[in-house]
Amino acid sequence: MTITVPLIQFGFGNVGRAVVERVLRTRDLFEWRYGLHLSYRALCDSRGAIIEMDGIRYGDLQRALAAKAAGESLSEFALGYLHQGLLDIVDIAASEGAIVIDVTATDETVPALLQALSLGCRLVLANKKPLTQRYETFRRLNADGRLRYEATVGAGVPVIATLTENLIASGDVIHRIEGCLSGTLGFLTTGLQAGEGFAALVRRAHELGYTEPDPRDDLGGMDVARKALILARTLGWPLELDQIAVEALFPPELGGGAAADFLTGAAALDEPYRRRVEAAAAAGKTLRYVATLSDGRARVGLEEVPLDSPVGRLQGTDNLIAFHTEVYRPTPLVLQGRGAGAQGTAAGVLADIVALARR
Amino acid sequence: MTITVPLIQFGFGNVGRAVVERVLRTRDLFEWRYGLHLSYRALCDSRGAIIEMDGIRYGDLQRALAAKAAGESLSEFALGYLHQGLLDIVDIAASEGAIVIDVTATDETVPALLQALSLGCRLVLANKKPLTQRYETFRRLNADGRLRYEATVGAGVPVIATLTENLIASGDVIHRIEGCLSGTLGFLTTGLQAGEGFAALVRRAHELGYTEPDPRDDLGGMDVARKALILARTLGWPLELDQIAVEALFPPELGGGAAADFLTGAAALDEPYRRRVEAAAAAGKTLRYVATLSDGRARVGLEEVPLDSPVGRLQGTDNLIAFHTEVYRPTPLVLQGRGAGAQGTAAGVLADIVALARR
Repeated sequence: MTITVPLIQFGFGNVGRAVVERVLRTRDLFEWRYGLHLSYRALCDSRGAIIEMDGIRYGDLQRALAAKAAGESLSEFALGYLHQGLLDIVDIAASEGAIVIDVTATDETVPALLQALSLGCRLVLANKKPLTQRYETFRRLNADGRLRYEATVGAGVPVIATLTENLIASGDVIHRIEGCLSGTLGFLTTGLQAGEGFAALVRRAHELGYTEPDPRDDLGGMDVARKALILARTLGWPLELDQIAVEALFPPELGGGAAADFLTGAAALDEPYRRRVEAAAAAGKTLRYVATLSDGRARVGLEEVPLDSPVGRLQGTDNLIAFHTEVYRPTPLVLQGRGAGAQGTAAGVLADIVALARR
Repeated sequence: MTITVPLIQFGFGNVGRAVVERVLRTRDLFEWRYGLHLSYRALCDSRGAIIEMDGIRYGDLQRALAAKAAGESLSEFALGYLHQGLLDIVDIAASEGAIVIDVTATDETVPALLQALSLGCRLVLANKKPLTQRYETFRRLNADGRLRYEATVGAGVPVIATLTENLIASGDVIHRIEGCLSGTLGFLTTGLQAGEGFAALVRRAHELGYTEPDPRDDLGGMDVARKALILARTLGWPLELDQIAVEALFPPELGGGAAADFLTGAAALDEPYRRRVEAAAAAGKTLRYVATLSDGRARVGLEEVPLDSPVGRLQGTDNLIAFHTEVYRPTPLVLQGRGAGAQGTAAGVLADIVALARR
């Protein structure tokens, strides 16, 4: 017996395409293993949608992927392309049991997500923005177990599943969570530890594509703060984003101006960072950009951590999260792995789809 | 709305008591959070069972815990105690949707587990034995998703959930799994790395209660081999236990005789191990007792691993598992934490109960 699971996907960028590719690639496996037939009913990018209530044919999905890969937009490619807003798409395509996948990076999806819930849909988010608006919005999206959002923290690394389905579900008491949740800032802090200069490291991360086009979008810490907020709210803490203490890796005077100017101006930070690194090393410690949750509060920033702690031993761009709990002490439960990239994020989305579909 | 989940528990030793304690301690939380009322219908040890079809009262569970803690057996304590075999207990107490918890360490539970499945029950196992008999038995127990067995590998560390619900369910391709799955052997290999003698380390592990009463039960590697077999079968490999290559940490001539004689005779192994440790160190490596799964084969034994690998960096009694996959490369997805002990094992059991009950 095979159950058809209708999918409605918001977003068709790098992650969105990786999700579609993975659905196509695993369709036989999923039918055989889980008795699930995943069937796209709507697929949209910022300019409109393909909607096909009987399921978009695999050949059309393949062609949409090829068109996108060739630099075309979905609307240039698709014959049946509709210039619809997200709410319209939901009203047309949603039904009880459909799964709405949000792999955009905007909070403009929130009304459509709430509308989808009211129509009996389930939600899978890789998009952090809807979950980091006001707490009331998180609460409404996460009211009754029809939302999953593994890919918002650590991409495919099962951070959210471990927290909710292992630690919370076993009645463990969580004392403290520490996470290195940015591959970019991991690259930077391990480079600093190795004696490299701050400005050169930022420039190299920029050239390698590890940073956003403006590296300050990573160095400002807000992306990590959003992840910390999602963890906090998953713990049941009704925090708002502006209640998280965030340390940026550059001073306010470098916050304005063009990205190119910042890359030049960052040279002034080489010496202060060199001194911080040396002071940490003298104390048997190293610097890491850490999200810390404890006692109902969350902060993200550069911390001196012991060299022989899980966070201190972490090297390179991997993410790491350490759960210090009643069961996991004195050493924490640690998860580590690639926490970014389209493939890992798509893997997290697929795991969530299967988990919801098997309920 | 609250759903009552009847529980039938085989085993009331250290782990079994920790499970009962955790059910009692979390009952309000679970009712509030999940709408689940966990209700013991049967609780048994090797001599018989308390059975109460309307649910054993909390006060009686408390008294049973106190009696066991005071060294009494369940049968000495319980008024309504029945001298029943496991099959009888299942026939009396089982019903559609009940969860049978096996926290014994015997394969004698297998007929009762199969009978419970045929009556519509679900199964949660911390007991490795039923899953490491012939493959056909594993297949029958694990036929249709009503079995969970998180606590059999790594205690509460979510090894099985990550493998099945994250990696396999996302369509990832698993290239290799490496695990340090014995806290005892972790203690031993990190001690050897620090230059301590083999015999003294074994004696200390024995005194600290890290080993079984006869330390050869740990040093022989069969416990790790069973965990490797469970991982292999979870991957879908139809292996048998005798197809796993197992390296014991002592030669056959030390396999006979009393445990005390072994502790004395082990001194003869100090020098060979010292040389192996030195050879590894000279190559930038260290010795770890590793379970390795790749290409359809599994082996467990002492391996030279790079000092800067996840397995090589591991210190002390924590367990660690590294999943090398298509998504997680070049660095693997790593889970690390306390992999033994009654509390961690009970936490894994509870997580499984909640996961099944919420399906």
